[in-house]
Amino acid sequence: MDLIIQNGAIVTETQVFQADLGVKEGKIAAIAADLSHVPCAQRVDASGKLVLPGAIDAHTHLAFPFGGTVSSDDFFAGTRAAACGGTTTVFDYSGQNPGESLLDTVKRREAQAESQGPAVDYALHVGITDLSGGLLDTMEEAVDYGVCSFKVYMVYDFAVSDGAFYQVLQKAQQTGSLICVHAENKEIISTLTAQLAAQGKLSPWYHYVSRPEFVAGEAARRAIAWAKSLNAPLYIVHLSDQEGVEAVAQAKAQGYAIYAETCPQYLHFTCDVFKRENGRNFVCSPPMKGQASQDALWRALKGGILDTVATDHCPFLQSEKDWGKEDFRKIPNGCSGVEVMYPYILSQANQGMITFPRAVQLCAANPARIFGCSSKGSLAVGKDADIVIYDPRKDFTVSQNNMHSDTDHTIWEGLRLHGYPHSTYSRGRLVYQEGRFLGQPGWGKLLKRSLKP
Amino acid sequence: MDLIIQNGAIVTETQVFQADLGVKEGKIAAIAADLSHVPCAQRVDASGKLVLPGAIDAHTHLAFPFGGTVSSDDFFAGTRAAACGGTTTVFDYSGQNPGESLLDTVKRREAQAESQGPAVDYALHVGITDLSGGLLDTMEEAVDYGVCSFKVYMVYDFAVSDGAFYQVLQKAQQTGSLICVHAENKEIISTLTAQLAAQGKLSPWYHYVSRPEFVAGEAARRAIAWAKSLNAPLYIVHLSDQEGVEAVAQAKAQGYAIYAETCPQYLHFTCDVFKRENGRNFVCSPPMKGQASQDALWRALKGGILDTVATDHCPFLQSEKDWGKEDFRKIPNGCSGVEVMYPYILSQANQGMITFPRAVQLCAANPARIFGCSSKGSLAVGKDADIVIYDPRKDFTVSQNNMHSDTDHTIWEGLRLHGYPHSTYSRGRLVYQEGRFLGQPGWGKLLKRSLKP
Amino acid sequence: MDLIIQNGAIVTETQVFQADLGVKEGKIAAIAADLSHVPCAQRVDASGKLVLPGAIDAHTHLAFPFGGTVSSDDFFAGTRAAACGGTTTVFDYSGQNPGESLLDTVKRREAQAESQGPAVDYALHVGITDLSGGLLDTMEEAVDYGVCSFKVYMVYDFAVSDGAFYQVLQKAQQTGSLICVHAENKEIISTLTAQLAAQGKLSPWYHYVSRPEFVAGEAARRAIAWAKSLNAPLYIVHLSDQEGVEAVAQAKAQGYAIYAETCPQYLHFTCDVFKRENGRNFVCSPPMKGQASQDALWRALKGGILDTVATDHCPFLQSEKDWGKEDFRKIPNGCSGVEVMYPYILSQANQGMITFPRAVQLCAANPARIFGCSSKGSLAVGKDADIVIYDPRKDFTVSQNNMHSDTDHTIWEGLRLHGYPHSTYSRGRLVYQEGRFLGQPGWGKLLKRSLKP
Amino acid sequence: MDLIIQNGAIVTETQVFQADLGVKEGKIAAIAADLSHVPCAQRVDASGKLVLPGAIDAHTHLAFPFGGTVSSDDFFAGTRAAACGGTTTVFDYSGQNPGESLLDTVKRREAQAESQGPAVDYALHVGITDLSGGLLDTMEEAVDYGVCSFKVYMVYDFAVSDGAFYQVLQKAQQTGSLICVHAENKEIISTLTAQLAAQGKLSPWYHYVSRPEFVAGEAARRAIAWAKSLNAPLYIVHLSDQEGVEAVAQAKAQGYAIYAETCPQYLHFTCDVFKRENGRNFVCSPPMKGQASQDALWRALKGGILDTVATDHCPFLQSEKDWGKEDFRKIPNGCSGVEVMYPYILSQANQGMITFPRAVQLCAANPARIFGCSSKGSLAVGKDADIVIYDPRKDFTVSQNNMHSDTDHTIWEGLRLHGYPHSTYSRGRLVYQEGRFLGQPGWGKLLKRSLKP
Repeated sequence: MDLIIQNGAIVTETQVFQADLGVKEGKIAAIAADLSHVPCAQRVDASGKLVLPGAIDAHTHLAFPFGGTVSSDDFFAGTRAAACGGTTTVFDYSGQNPGESLLDTVKRREAQAESQGPAVDYALHVGITDLSGGLLDTMEEAVDYGVCSFKVYMVYDFAVSDGAFYQVLQKAQQTGSLICVHAENKEIISTLTAQLAAQGKLSPWYHYVSRPEFVAGEAARRAIAWAKSLNAPLYIVHLSDQEGVEAVAQAKAQGYAIYAETCPQYLHFTCDVFKRENGRNFVCSPPMKGQASQDALWRALKGGILDTVATDHCPFLQSEKDWGKEDFRKIPNGCSGVEVMYPYILSQANQGMITFPRAVQLCAANPARIFGCSSKGSLAVGKDADIVIYDPRKDFTVSQNNMHSDTDHTIWEGLRLHGYPHSTYSRGRLVYQEGRFLGQPGWGKLLKRSLKP
Repeated sequence: MDLIIQNGAIVTETQVFQADLGVKEGKIAAIAADLSHVPCAQRVDASGKLVLPGAIDAHTHLAFPFGGTVSSDDFFAGTRAAACGGTTTVFDYSGQNPGESLLDTVKRREAQAESQGPAVDYALHVGITDLSGGLLDTMEEAVDYGVCSFKVYMVYDFAVSDGAFYQVLQKAQQTGSLICVHAENKEIISTLTAQLAAQGKLSPWYHYVSRPEFVAGEAARRAIAWAKSLNAPLYIVHLSDQEGVEAVAQAKAQGYAIYAETCPQYLHFTCDVFKRENGRNFVCSPPMKGQASQDALWRALKGGILDTVATDHCPFLQSEKDWGKEDFRKIPNGCSGVEVMYPYILSQANQGMITFPRAVQLCAANPARIFGCSSKGSLAVGKDADIVIYDPRKDFTVSQNNMHSDTDHTIWEGLRLHGYPHSTYSRGRLVYQEGRFLGQPGWGKLLKRSLKP
Repeated sequence: MDLIIQNGAIVTETQVFQADLGVKEGKIAAIAADLSHVPCAQRVDASGKLVLPGAIDAHTHLAFPFGGTVSSDDFFAGTRAAACGGTTTVFDYSGQNPGESLLDTVKRREAQAESQGPAVDYALHVGITDLSGGLLDTMEEAVDYGVCSFKVYMVYDFAVSDGAFYQVLQKAQQTGSLICVHAENKEIISTLTAQLAAQGKLSPWYHYVSRPEFVAGEAARRAIAWAKSLNAPLYIVHLSDQEGVEAVAQAKAQGYAIYAETCPQYLHFTCDVFKRENGRNFVCSPPMKGQASQDALWRALKGGILDTVATDHCPFLQSEKDWGKEDFRKIPNGCSGVEVMYPYILSQANQGMITFPRAVQLCAANPARIFGCSSKGSLAVGKDADIVIYDPRKDFTVSQNNMHSDTDHTIWEGLRLHGYPHSTYSRGRLVYQEGRFLGQPGWGKLLKRSLKP
Repeated sequence: MDLIIQNGAIVTETQVFQADLGVKEGKIAAIAADLSHVPCAQRVDASGKLVLPGAIDAHTHLAFPFGGTVSSDDFFAGTRAAACGGTTTVFDYSGQNPGESLLDTVKRREAQAESQGPAVDYALHVGITDLSGGLLDTMEEAVDYGVCSFKVYMVYDFAVSDGAFYQVLQKAQQTGSLICVHAENKEIISTLTAQLAAQGKLSPWYHYVSRPEFVAGEAARRAIAWAKSLNAPLYIVHLSDQEGVEAVAQAKAQGYAIYAETCPQYLHFTCDVFKRENGRNFVCSPPMKGQASQDALWRALKGGILDTVATDHCPFLQSEKDWGKEDFRKIPNGCSGVEVMYPYILSQANQGMITFPRAVQLCAANPARIFGCSSKGSLAVGKDADIVIYDPRKDFTVSQNNMHSDTDHTIWEGLRLHGYPHSTYSRGRLVYQEGRFLGQPGWGKLLKRSLKP
């Protein structure tokens, strides 16, 4: 063995048990009651600590051109922050350029990522924006290359129409891939925004008013309607509202493969944050909703209706956020989160809101299974040795000072956590320990995936 | 190591992967990429086969006094049949005698079981029938003794009233235990039965007519209403109908801990079986329902609404079933199933209806988790070495000749399965292999359980 | 013509229009644009006023033995109060004595009513309490006699079991009659009451705590389940809670003939009244519920889910109410309402909450149609001339001083109404005008009814 | 009096009763038990017959430019056919031309109607197709002129976007008007149609396949979402599918003013008609759906979920229908119905499917109330004397030979009806009797309407 983690409590997606864990050539080679006599290069004592799979953040936007700028974490900075928060895999939503084949999008972004040097492994989803001229037919090449998940936006300039959405779902069925959707109603948002602007209502609070609960609820119902009509699987990103939860629950009860993701910001904040003096910093889309929606999300998180937690990590600098200080339309949409996600969810588990195995399901096992990322997400023999040693007794207060993003502020400033990652391993290599990033640029590799049985 | 199973595909409740599995002192001691160099008393080659946890049949009635006789499998015969079908733990629903404390019921049945010599481990639920004179307060003793699940019947002579049911749920909350419920409406069944009898409608078909879909659906909704009002967990046994599925789905979506079990007979047969010449043999309660309900059960099984599959194994001899050849009221209610359950569900997985990990969830991991049976149900280090080696290529046709129950017939006669258990281990001991029972009476022990965190 | 009401605005269940209305021999003989030249014994000018059908209060308990006493309004006092509030027909729920045929109940109560001398016409429902010995078969005689509506109670000592309820519905289908149901769960109420008593929680507030929302919601769902299974019509009396509203709405949407009645007390008060110093006076069953339920009732009233408003008028003297000052179990359940109902609902219409025709539907036309009371409930030619002239500009404050019941207090004390009945006619005879009762005992007659097409 | 109809059974929207009905100056002047002594120009004996309000067909397309031609009934021919079927008011959906103010649309169509000479009164809805340049602000002028209902299409070239739809609803709230919506998803229809065409699937059957249940269900849900978000009333035209019914029922149960109309073709035919040899003749949009949807429509019709029945009368000549014999895309969408609607629904009432008052609600009173057509729809004093005398014993078989449209075929050919209109009066003038049209072009006038309280 290259590495043995001894005496910890192993946390899988379904169990907690005392065992030793052995790593060889970057993979989990053994989980056993006692590996103390097995020859090994390095031994780590995890007594009193939990040993968990590294998290998968299935929703980030690195070096993402948006809102008139580019998100402030590139593939290196974003993955460095991830590693320091116990997240050992990030998925990036790479956006197709007009006229670009989906495989070319993948290769372009892969090249960009390689040049920036990711600190942990990464995967790519492709955001489909242009179906003209047979470009949808290039999905198969991308799937063959190892990218089997795609996204459609029902909002923004690059929104797809319902007809295009339907065709994307059909193509996904043919190619064995999964469609993700950003579900808000573009038209209603535009209309409300224009009306608010005409009334001079442009403070950050009106960002929420322009995208209230029903614009997300309606879009989720519509997206699910298309998926149901085709019996195609569908993954709803960043679910934020009660009606969306109800729509997902109903579809699941009918046996449809409708998956839903929420984000820590929807679990922790409500729309009231937009009334704060620094409300602009919290602006992301969809916005945080009212208390009834937050309550519904928590019930769904516990009750099995939500499948994953991810971050929609898409940070912008304070100076960029300030563009919209007096006009929410000018605020680049997005916040940081990749370093906080796993500590936040594990802290909830540590305080009894959910179990630790449920936390592992949400943040690691489920995204791996849903997105065909077969080498990740579980502490099982043969999987990549992406491991977090978690200290359940360590108290930690989030601050810009102790985060590892290139962003210059965090909406999580002051968040008190009970329990925190002690160290993180990526394919058996130590990349983080007790506050310090120990990895290196370029260690992370693109993950090739498949959803074919 | 005492035993190493090499080269198989390990199936957990969430993963399938190639690994070796080592057993020491009856427990799983290691799961590792390669245990070929570890010293070991016995090696088994599982190349080309699946290695799964033994199943838990959370619903059996052994040596059960009912319908004017006693079910024909005692604790030995029933567990022998279980072992031969890959089921390594059975739960028995032990019925409280009038005036008996719940702990006394446990001890009485434990003594009976010990005297009959179970072939695999067993656990006891207690069916509560008498709450008079403070008997409900004896629940705590039973929980302290290791029995933390109880059942109420909404039907039969020993049915509890709604008020008693409510108090049972309250007591369960106080003692950290789980209530199971047989949900049918006793009054309506009695009324319909009397009316059918008055019309001379007494063939086995009228067993179904006397307990149609709505008598189960109503009772499930009512049971769930009490559980929701207290925010108490509830486990609905042998769910058989569409309305019940909808009620469970709705409660889960609202975040309530409402669990549901179905049985192979509801997944495989419809009420049409009661029209067969030997329809009396299929008589059990609740009866199999119409096609719409069967379809709803399958959707719920796939979609995560159903939590477990168990059998309600309660066989009677042909001569006893014949009592009701011309009067369904005289047919002892119940059928055999304990030997067929796991092969049936795994065969469905083998043919792609569900995944193998989902089969393991339904038949092993979920019943273990829900009923606090922490030593069972998973292939994880430290768990009991209850293991099935499954041959996915073996074809098997169920027949009275190749079953191991003391019953003299089976409703599953002629069932063709693709894939079948090759061998079964109970705490590391081989108890079944290729058609032969190899265990011994008395090997099985009572499992002490707890649902306290 | 005997009487012509000129120049008023006629309000039917669907229209408001200016017309004259002529009465001959106690019936409406003409509605016409101009009856000024028609010879007539008496002319009344209704300029600036509304002319409406007299209300039907389909739910009263007159001279009702209950709670250790008898309700304080007999057939004369109750109908006198009714007339003074614009209600020209009352239905009494007559309770079957043990062993009594349903026709005998009718005749016994008819004799009692005749001896007390009702001031307006009345009809009888029979509350079924004893089905033994073929008594249910006497329903047909009662129907033939002109009583075609019966009630079952799911609570109280005289509650019917589910099986009996089911048989009652079957018999109702055979005889063309309608079953009414008081839907609360008896068992749960008993259990909660006993637990509260054991804790010394006996103030009037705990009357509500012992019968919270879910005990009514469950019972309504159950009652509807039986009616749906038989496709039998069902009328739910005094619906008070949100879940009940949802159950009724769902059944209506599926096309079932499920009717629902609510009462002014549920529309106007919430359970907070039980915390008042005189909380005992408000004790009735079901109790008023929380705000969410009241809101749901109003939405349902507007949206067509509720069919009727009636009062459950069952007043007791202050001295009797005081029995339970310190023990809610000893408070006779019931309040007055028959004189306030129509003024309350019309005042709501006058203030725009609902339309006047909707008020007439709820309080007159719908109860007449649903209960087969073909001579009442509408201003149509041939109907009995039961008429209210309503002054929409008269302000009125309800007080014990201006009510006409034999009760010595009213829960409606201090209620301010905008608009009030000016005069009431029963079969063309003036029985009330401007505060004074002008009728006479014995004017009212038993109404024979039929629901057969 | 000018006209007295004696001895008939008057059918209102809530009652049936024997009475005489007097007409003066085109209005109902009296309904009375006996008008035999009132002086009168003309007496009609209606013994043994029903006297009903003339129907309102709230959905027709007269002289409607569509599908490359113009619908074959102009304002005269269409209203002549209407009169002969007992329909005394038709609403036409007039389409706004690009750049045209809504009032100009009204005036243009009014002029066209006047030039063609309608035989009975008519009202106009305006189909909004262009909101550019402040045209939406012209809604108020149209409302002031007496047109207070507008329509948006979610399909066709002139479909409005969700944002425009939302603004239309807002403007309707401001102006006190009602929005009607054709709810199907344009994008999905286009996509499916293109795919079917690519596969050469172009027979009339594929018209249905291109617009299956879910494209209507989704659009209804979406339309309702916008109305609910604004608490604005909404009227869904030609509801044809089960999911739409469920969406309407749910919204009504929540107290929202969501109205729904269906058409005889959805109640009588299923999509199977498109497989007939003359399937092209049945092509209309939305298409008839499967049996489950038809069953749901009937349950909703009985249960109060549907508010109105109208026809979507939009006939085309056989030669025009033949354009699409081999390509459903070329078939002008629409069928005749205006002459058959009332006889069809009354025949259903005559056979006990619904009551006669319910038929009057659906076909007369409800459209009058919903669309603010205060002079029509009821047999009440002061209303226009639009009256049908109906012979419940007359059998009638629909045929092209006995219809009065300018169309050269009917999808209702061979329909057998039990009961048929004997004569029709428009404002007191006889316009139809026993098979013969007796009216004259130009008798009909534009109805000015208002929905303001």
